[in-house]
Amino acid sequence: MISLADLQRRIAAGELSADAAIAQSLAAIGAQDKTIGAFVCRADSVRAASAGPLRGIAVGIKDIMDTADFPTEMGSPIYRGHRPRGDAAVVMMLKQAGASIVGKTTTTAFASTDPTATLNPHNHGHTPGGSSSGSAAAVAAGMIPLALGTQTGGSVIRPASFCGVAAIKPSYRLLPTVGVKCYSWTLDTVGLFAAGVSDVAHGLAAMTGRPELLPQASVPTPRIGIVTQDFAGAPEASGGEALRIATRATERAGATARALELPEIVAEAWRVHPVLQEFEAHQALAWEYRENYDAMAPLIRGRLDESKGTLPAAYDEALRIARRARHALAQVFEDVDVLLTLSAPGAAPKGLGSTGDARYNRLWTLMGVPCVNIPAHVADGGLPVGVQVIARYSADAEALAAARFVEQALK
Amino acid sequence: MISLADLQRRIAAGELSADAAIAQSLAAIGAQDKTIGAFVCRADSVRAASAGPLRGIAVGIKDIMDTADFPTEMGSPIYRGHRPRGDAAVVMMLKQAGASIVGKTTTTAFASTDPTATLNPHNHGHTPGGSSSGSAAAVAAGMIPLALGTQTGGSVIRPASFCGVAAIKPSYRLLPTVGVKCYSWTLDTVGLFAAGVSDVAHGLAAMTGRPELLPQASVPTPRIGIVTQDFAGAPEASGGEALRIATRATERAGATARALELPEIVAEAWRVHPVLQEFEAHQALAWEYRENYDAMAPLIRGRLDESKGTLPAAYDEALRIARRARHALAQVFEDVDVLLTLSAPGAAPKGLGSTGDARYNRLWTLMGVPCVNIPAHVADGGLPVGVQVIARYSADAEALAAARFVEQALK
Repeated sequence: MISLADLQRRIAAGELSADAAIAQSLAAIGAQDKTIGAFVCRADSVRAASAGPLRGIAVGIKDIMDTADFPTEMGSPIYRGHRPRGDAAVVMMLKQAGASIVGKTTTTAFASTDPTATLNPHNHGHTPGGSSSGSAAAVAAGMIPLALGTQTGGSVIRPASFCGVAAIKPSYRLLPTVGVKCYSWTLDTVGLFAAGVSDVAHGLAAMTGRPELLPQASVPTPRIGIVTQDFAGAPEASGGEALRIATRATERAGATARALELPEIVAEAWRVHPVLQEFEAHQALAWEYRENYDAMAPLIRGRLDESKGTLPAAYDEALRIARRARHALAQVFEDVDVLLTLSAPGAAPKGLGSTGDARYNRLWTLMGVPCVNIPAHVADGGLPVGVQVIARYSADAEALAAARFVEQALK
Repeated sequence: MISLADLQRRIAAGELSADAAIAQSLAAIGAQDKTIGAFVCRADSVRAASAGPLRGIAVGIKDIMDTADFPTEMGSPIYRGHRPRGDAAVVMMLKQAGASIVGKTTTTAFASTDPTATLNPHNHGHTPGGSSSGSAAAVAAGMIPLALGTQTGGSVIRPASFCGVAAIKPSYRLLPTVGVKCYSWTLDTVGLFAAGVSDVAHGLAAMTGRPELLPQASVPTPRIGIVTQDFAGAPEASGGEALRIATRATERAGATARALELPEIVAEAWRVHPVLQEFEAHQALAWEYRENYDAMAPLIRGRLDESKGTLPAAYDEALRIARRARHALAQVFEDVDVLLTLSAPGAAPKGLGSTGDARYNRLWTLMGVPCVNIPAHVADGGLPVGVQVIARYSADAEALAAARFVEQALK
């Protein structure tokens, strides 16, 4: 994989020109993407910006984010050839930081669950996960040092886990969703994929102009709460193994790690996530669903068919439960700095029929708290399995610092 | 003006066909809009839907909302000829309820403060207010029974006050902003304009599928807190007069109305509204501002120039203040059912150089609480002046019921 932080260092030191760094990515895409299929479209030649912390950094953008320079097709024939007038806010943040957009990455239709044709770079017989399939795969395959995705259920952390890359789903609205196709305005969150935790931190700090997110010289030892999310059912063997390995590694590195039971209202929030998500999707995708029903991909259409007729009262109740759960979760963070939990039930499923299961992710998206994936284990077939570090709302710097601790402990 | 509720009644009773109701609106637009200039584009012929509570209702849509059937130009040459692929969520809500979209109404550029050429129907020498200029003017001039606008500072309630129409800025996210051009995701709120409070209530109930918003047979007598918003400075004579008239009328009608001082943290929230608004606008409009600077209208561009370089820490602090103020405001509603306050400093300013001042509106947009404008007074020059009724967050039904009480008391 290409380390963003390493590229930055070499470009700043004059060991590598920004243009050469980008050319390297374009060459890697040229060599690999005909097999992996992570990009839906890409630039043939790209010039580096003359300044900015991300100059020389080639970035892939999930194809539900508006770009003036590339079509934006949302993973759906309904948007074939669609060309937005302007760039999404996060795309502009990248450009202002000096990054170069080299292409658009594959997405399941409207960031739901209908699989793309993208392959998992670690084992071509398996899915890379979704919905940010291309972004996770492109970073994992060493094509680009940074990619953007989005998460509504588990669409950043799960593909990162399956592809063995670091990723952050930041606190709700740390990154704007303006110009990003909406599925659920209460949930949709833009996230970043990169080789390691420091790379993710450098990317997020540059985009937001928040230097406090940059990795600090000393990594503090966190108090960790281990959470198994029993309300979501048991993990597969490889998922459980990843969590055990990460727990033991952090303990060996000197952290206190104790099992933690979440309050019942938090489990309740996990249960109502789909109610809230689909109620909003019926409004957000009303034009697509009502006026282009036959062109909708089967899984998302089925999901909308099933949730049709949900009453506003059920949605209001889900919102109330989420609000109470956020309060209860904030109290959990009075005793621990971060939580450590499963990123996915296990390794990437076989075949391309499913993008995997978001059951260990959706609670955290609804809580709006920052989540960072760290690769922790390699299962049979060379398939990576990650764990996620979660901090309290708006403590993105703490989440990244603790994730770095876990990452180092695992080395 | 055309009463939506009255049209619904006549159509349901078979006194008027849905197509005839729409034809009436089209004729009124044809007769009046060459003078008023409320529409940027409109349909030549429109058929009524065959079903739905809003069939036969001709609606105007603020031109920052995506429509597949009309260009969407955002009040800016940057979007000249722009044609979205789909409809905004609120447009689809209207269509699903049977309404017919007859055209797009004028908006200041990106719903900021650069005036449009629209005239105030009550006095052509005055502004109709903004940023939802065309929507307020089209309803006031009797062209259409319903129009959609948005409010980030005071862009629904202020033009409603200036134009003598009823309007609601509902609770934050009761109506989705998906497909609506973003200025500030924390503030932007879709609102409705109609002839009277019942008309607004019928429109909102039909769009949201929430029958509890419909006017009830008996109007309960509310406990009213009178708020003068001294932190925003003193009103003009006509604004103060409108609030006195409305207060006296409600007291005569049997309501308790007592002066109420808002907690200091709420005044503090009023002060930080612009910090939050412009910080988000710099991200939401980054593409327009950075890549189309010369084509930006002067007032919005100046506003962005001035607020350039605001640090994330100032924004974070503004968000924290807003959160604390929302808690403090919730407690205020333990003693009163609704607040009654100024909708604008006074009547519509002379000329078309300014859309007026949002200083009595912006706090409530930031608090996310429902606000309903009721015309209360007619100042010199035949210019209407309104007052607004405000309820606690998500108590939109209570806000509408109390606004109906005030409206009846003023008759």
